[in-house]
Amino acid sequence: MRTYIADTKNKVGESVELFGWVQTIRDQKKIKFLILRDISGVVQCVVFGNDEALKVVESLTLESVIKIEGTVKAEKQAPGGIEIAVEKIEVLSLAAPELPIPVIEKTGEVDLAKRIDWRWLDLRKPERKLIFDVWTAMEQAFVDYCAENKYIEIHSPKLMSAPSEGSAELFEVKYFERKAYLSQSPQFYKQMAMAAGFEKTFEIGPVFRANPSFTSRHDTEFTGYDIEISFIDSHYDVMAEEERFIVAMLTGIKEKHGDKIKEFYNRDITVPATPFPKVTMEEAKKILSDLNIASTDDGDLNPEEERKLSEFIKKRDNHEFVFVTDYPKSVRPFYHMRQESDPNVTKSFDLLFNGLEVTTGAQREHRYDILIQQAQEKGLTLEPIQFYLNFFKYGCPPHGGLGFGPSRFVMQTLGLENVREVTYLYRGVKRLEP
Amino acid sequence: MRTYIADTKNKVGESVELFGWVQTIRDQKKIKFLILRDISGVVQCVVFGNDEALKVVESLTLESVIKIEGTVKAEKQAPGGIEIAVEKIEVLSLAAPELPIPVIEKTGEVDLAKRIDWRWLDLRKPERKLIFDVWTAMEQAFVDYCAENKYIEIHSPKLMSAPSEGSAELFEVKYFERKAYLSQSPQFYKQMAMAAGFEKTFEIGPVFRANPSFTSRHDTEFTGYDIEISFIDSHYDVMAEEERFIVAMLTGIKEKHGDKIKEFYNRDITVPATPFPKVTMEEAKKILSDLNIASTDDGDLNPEEERKLSEFIKKRDNHEFVFVTDYPKSVRPFYHMRQESDPNVTKSFDLLFNGLEVTTGAQREHRYDILIQQAQEKGLTLEPIQFYLNFFKYGCPPHGGLGFGPSRFVMQTLGLENVREVTYLYRGVKRLEP
Repeated sequence: MRTYIADTKNKVGESVELFGWVQTIRDQKKIKFLILRDISGVVQCVVFGNDEALKVVESLTLESVIKIEGTVKAEKQAPGGIEIAVEKIEVLSLAAPELPIPVIEKTGEVDLAKRIDWRWLDLRKPERKLIFDVWTAMEQAFVDYCAENKYIEIHSPKLMSAPSEGSAELFEVKYFERKAYLSQSPQFYKQMAMAAGFEKTFEIGPVFRANPSFTSRHDTEFTGYDIEISFIDSHYDVMAEEERFIVAMLTGIKEKHGDKIKEFYNRDITVPATPFPKVTMEEAKKILSDLNIASTDDGDLNPEEERKLSEFIKKRDNHEFVFVTDYPKSVRPFYHMRQESDPNVTKSFDLLFNGLEVTTGAQREHRYDILIQQAQEKGLTLEPIQFYLNFFKYGCPPHGGLGFGPSRFVMQTLGLENVREVTYLYRGVKRLEP
Repeated sequence: MRTYIADTKNKVGESVELFGWVQTIRDQKKIKFLILRDISGVVQCVVFGNDEALKVVESLTLESVIKIEGTVKAEKQAPGGIEIAVEKIEVLSLAAPELPIPVIEKTGEVDLAKRIDWRWLDLRKPERKLIFDVWTAMEQAFVDYCAENKYIEIHSPKLMSAPSEGSAELFEVKYFERKAYLSQSPQFYKQMAMAAGFEKTFEIGPVFRANPSFTSRHDTEFTGYDIEISFIDSHYDVMAEEERFIVAMLTGIKEKHGDKIKEFYNRDITVPATPFPKVTMEEAKKILSDLNIASTDDGDLNPEEERKLSEFIKKRDNHEFVFVTDYPKSVRPFYHMRQESDPNVTKSFDLLFNGLEVTTGAQREHRYDILIQQAQEKGLTLEPIQFYLNFFKYGCPPHGGLGFGPSRFVMQTLGLENVREVTYLYRGVKRLEP
């Protein structure tokens, strides 16, 4: 019966079976020390006066997987005050003697690309594993929020006959005798759920972008969270919904992993106050101009502007989030609804989290004629998207939604700088392995 | 402030705002009746002595989306004993007059292919929507089970440099200057999580199979649930884990939707007793031979054999599930571990649910040398999978896992015959739209 290492402190004097990785070997001939690591922690194991076990340790390599039978002892000198007096060691998987990258014992910083080459060794570090613990807590909170609030989950197809977000950055698939494309977002299909009367829907799944850039924010495949809700009055209803699920996510993350995040990343998780601060794009540009931040694009914010705007809001409102609303139609896709008061402005928003965009959302145009007009205005050919336009022909409620980037959200939660750090296995132009 | 239709029964005498789809129009000139449908139910609305509202109804079409302001009245004649006396109707989305398929009012059975052409109309039927409510409850139960039991969630890449399940049925992607392949399962990458020391991991995501067949069980893209766990003794530990999460799923489904499943599908959801019945492949063949069921394959069960075996177990053990274990190595992939007592037999299993296979699982071979030997024996070229083989070089614990088919599970839960019915948007050889 296995004992997790974290539980040994409650078993002083007892015999235990431990399983884990050999993190350190200290060989003093007649007495040998191991540090054993499992998912729950580390413990010192001492081998003494046991020829068979001593012999096993002699041929042991770092990061081998072993089973240890022994007795738990209180030992002030040992880390955590606990030591295992080893009775038997069984090698379950002997590691090759030369590790391609150090796992725990530091030998200086290793290049990120090399760490990704050996990602499974890189992920053995507890601070890396924590990233995926945080992700798990975030996703569970999101799923629970949606399910408890009567959302219907969909898994929409990733193989499509036409692009959903324009024809740039599209991956082409050989599909029997024809071509298919990889989905760049579930946009069309979550809107279909609204036409189907699902009223509220959510999806978690991969999205694909044939983006040739090599920045720390971009990848060719990433996970998206999407929601879509019906019978809204405006994009403000969508933002209110996002505030609620973000509160649920950060509450879950803080409760489950707040202490470890403090320990490994020195960050305090704050559950944000609602409503979040909101500024229109026009107001945002005014704020940035007052701060003397150069604008590169009339209708959108560049990364520098995003950071500075977030800094300003943090100072003014003591808030890590800010919604930027009401983008001009020039920078938004054809399916965003436009404002009655000013048809050049869309009912749309982005959400910035500590200076990084983590969401794009909008009320959608649900009126067939106007949608076609807007598509044509953007220069789209209607025929390939006719199947989508049909969704609006037979009764479709007013609706809106958003796409949320969980990787970026985890980056900002932990203060990490690169999307590669928070992606289980990063995919980029030159990266299809491991 | 919106009132859901199901809540009107608690608001007799009150003014309400309802939103929904026009399901029926009954025009008796001076008095007109509508049946309005939203996500929560249907209600009769009566328009009388209100010229403006009467005029709106005159140009109304079936399945249009409207907003109704009115007063809730108790009315014995009306379905559910409730009627809305309409004060105002606003048309939010006028449906084109000719529906391509009937939505609620029956005009005979519609061909499945045609229903999928107009899937969003097909899904408006409450019994179809229920399929995805069931799916949502199942998936929430699975996520909660995993998260509460310290699983770490991963989202592994769907773009790969090499096939994970052999080179048959593989979709090829144009990936910048080279080729990529769509993932046929997260097999390699969930095993990587074991090498990374995650100990328990799960994934929910799409899998792709370029399967040219047109059967009721096959599609080119579907959702898979996967788990992988470390430090197991054998495949029996994996089966025990599956029993627990299936109990959690069926408990969730029964609690949330048991009544509706009874109403629409006339099925009683049974939370199964544990442990589930288990028979080895050898025993299964013996049972089937005693029943005079012809075998077409020595090492595997054909669909007829699966059905008959499940019927036998249902009769003998009163159980809807049966694990078939210990498949011969000839029908299992190279990474399945073989038994010490008989190296021709693998430590593997399938799970049948009322006669349909819903899971394949096994203990994996974690010993580098033996794994290579087994890959070579299966005729695999090692070079393209060297990145995978490397996972086992630097300490990898004994582990096993399974792939679970949620669509098939929902089919069997509701007694549906075709995977197209339980897939939000089916993908097949000739089907990339909508």
